Amino acid sequence: MNPNSELGPALQALIERADRALAAALPADDVPPTDLHRAMRYAVLGGGKRLRPLLVYAAGHALGRDDAALDMPACAVELIHAYSLVHDDLPAMDDDDMRRGRPTCHIVFGEAMAILAGDALQALAFELLAQAPVEPATGMAMQRTLGRACGAEGMAGGQALDLAAVGRVLTLAELEYMHACKTGALIRASVQLGAMAAGADIDTLDALDRYAHAVGLAFQVRDDILDVEGESAVIGKTAGKDAAADKPTFPSILGLEASRARLAELTDEALAALGPLDAPHSPLRELALYAAHRLR
Amino acid sequence: MNPNSELGPALQALIERADRALAAALPADDVPPTDLHRAMRYAVLGGGKRLRPLLVYAAGHALGRDDAALDMPACAVELIHAYSLVHDDLPAMDDDDMRRGRPTCHIVFGEAMAILAGDALQALAFELLAQAPVEPATGMAMQRTLGRACGAEGMAGGQALDLAAVGRVLTLAELEYMHACKTGALIRASVQLGAMAAGADIDTLDALDRYAHAVGLAFQVRDDILDVEGESAVIGKTAGKDAAADKPTFPSILGLEASRARLAELTDEALAALGPLDAPHSPLRELALYAAHRLR
Repeated sequence: MNPNSELGPALQALIERADRALAAALPADDVPPTDLHRAMRYAVLGGGKRLRPLLVYAAGHALGRDDAALDMPACAVELIHAYSLVHDDLPAMDDDDMRRGRPTCHIVFGEAMAILAGDALQALAFELLAQAPVEPATGMAMQRTLGRACGAEGMAGGQALDLAAVGRVLTLAELEYMHACKTGALIRASVQLGAMAAGADIDTLDALDRYAHAVGLAFQVRDDILDVEGESAVIGKTAGKDAAADKPTFPSILGLEASRARLAELTDEALAALGPLDAPHSPLRELALYAAHRLR
Repeated sequence: MNPNSELGPALQALIERADRALAAALPADDVPPTDLHRAMRYAVLGGGKRLRPLLVYAAGHALGRDDAALDMPACAVELIHAYSLVHDDLPAMDDDDMRRGRPTCHIVFGEAMAILAGDALQALAFELLAQAPVEPATGMAMQRTLGRACGAEGMAGGQALDLAAVGRVLTLAELEYMHACKTGALIRASVQLGAMAAGADIDTLDALDRYAHAVGLAFQVRDDILDVEGESAVIGKTAGKDAAADKPTFPSILGLEASRARLAELTDEALAALGPLDAPHSPLRELALYAAHRLR
């Protein structure tokens, strides 16, 4: 099953565009150090939903920006996402052997190379972002946005909160805050980078940030529901893994029914935030609905 | 013994300036996630030679730039250096228990937190660099320079080459290439960032890059000589460790005498490259001599 088959043709074409840009931006696997380059390419190019690049393109398009200005930010956020998965899967972290239906990076290339590949992917993300054809002052603001989203106040901080949460009982507010950092910060940065590249004003950036916050959380609620309901073969990782690992989830705190209700609420919030940027078939609308209803 | 006591008062004052800027830029250790923040501060603030920030300041000063424009690049390169040490010390990498006379980050905070702290330090480096008060177009070029220095063509690539070299016999050229990537790339970036922040022209950047290349390599040759000659208590890590780990070094390939001769040659190259930027007591000259003659 193609992970992208739940999206319409316009977004599928953008996934292919992002994949081509990523393949071109990553170091060639026949150039030394080949092990490192192969590990980097394996971590990034083996499928994935490409939600973050799609959000960059969708936000930029909604404000009239063309693809060419959005490719580098789109690559940057996906490289950050890919590196975070490689490091999260390490034995010292979540200790996952499978990801996207394949052995994880450290299983194939060893732990040392997986750590290094993640490190190099993060560096490449910032290097590529600094190549985006935007006004330099905008580019500098985009660098700050991505840096903040990846660091101790964002993704890395969220992963630290997640590690500290194993075996503990969290409140709903604590769980949502953890996800807002761990996955939400980069999802919000993706939307912001697309909008910034398109020259968005502060009000538009603010509205899109509310959209992105809701979409990011909805994506995570859906993830937790799929972990309960889904089949491993379809979702591409081990179903029931979170519960088995004693990780707090939306269903474990709220129950399934209330989790579904929270998902519907978040979807409404996301669409309402779009305001005048909403349209029946807009990519931003499609992605909000996809985050909430996807089957994998 | 103060690790900075081999430097003159002007450079010592700059170390203190860099330390203050780093302490202010790092997240407070009483703000959640406290474990992550404490690990980040531990990795950065526990001493260290601060060679890279000093090179930023020295290059900037040589071209007439004031400290205030150099603080953020100086912090950025030190954060990158600190993160690389944390990750290199991990059990899956070099498996070091001691660093700068203290237990390594993963010994104190655990492996997961050490991985995350390294990741967050890298992100913070790029975020801080994007706050440097320079022309935005210069700032974007500085981001690209730092990104390239940290990634697969630079520091991370060099560490991959280093891992692949364990137990192998390297030629002198291979050893120098590995070091040029692993430590040289960031040392060169430090000098370039200081010079770029000062608005250096292309010829000056080129001359300073030859200086930095020679200083970086000299620093490493001196490191290898100290590993043979030094005492653990003075150098702050286990003497003889490289030989015990079957790592190729300059003395193991060239012998001690020829290593000393190579060191003298590199020092001459560094000073020659400075050309009109050289002066009897210039910080750039002092740092080149320090790299070659330091006792720890």
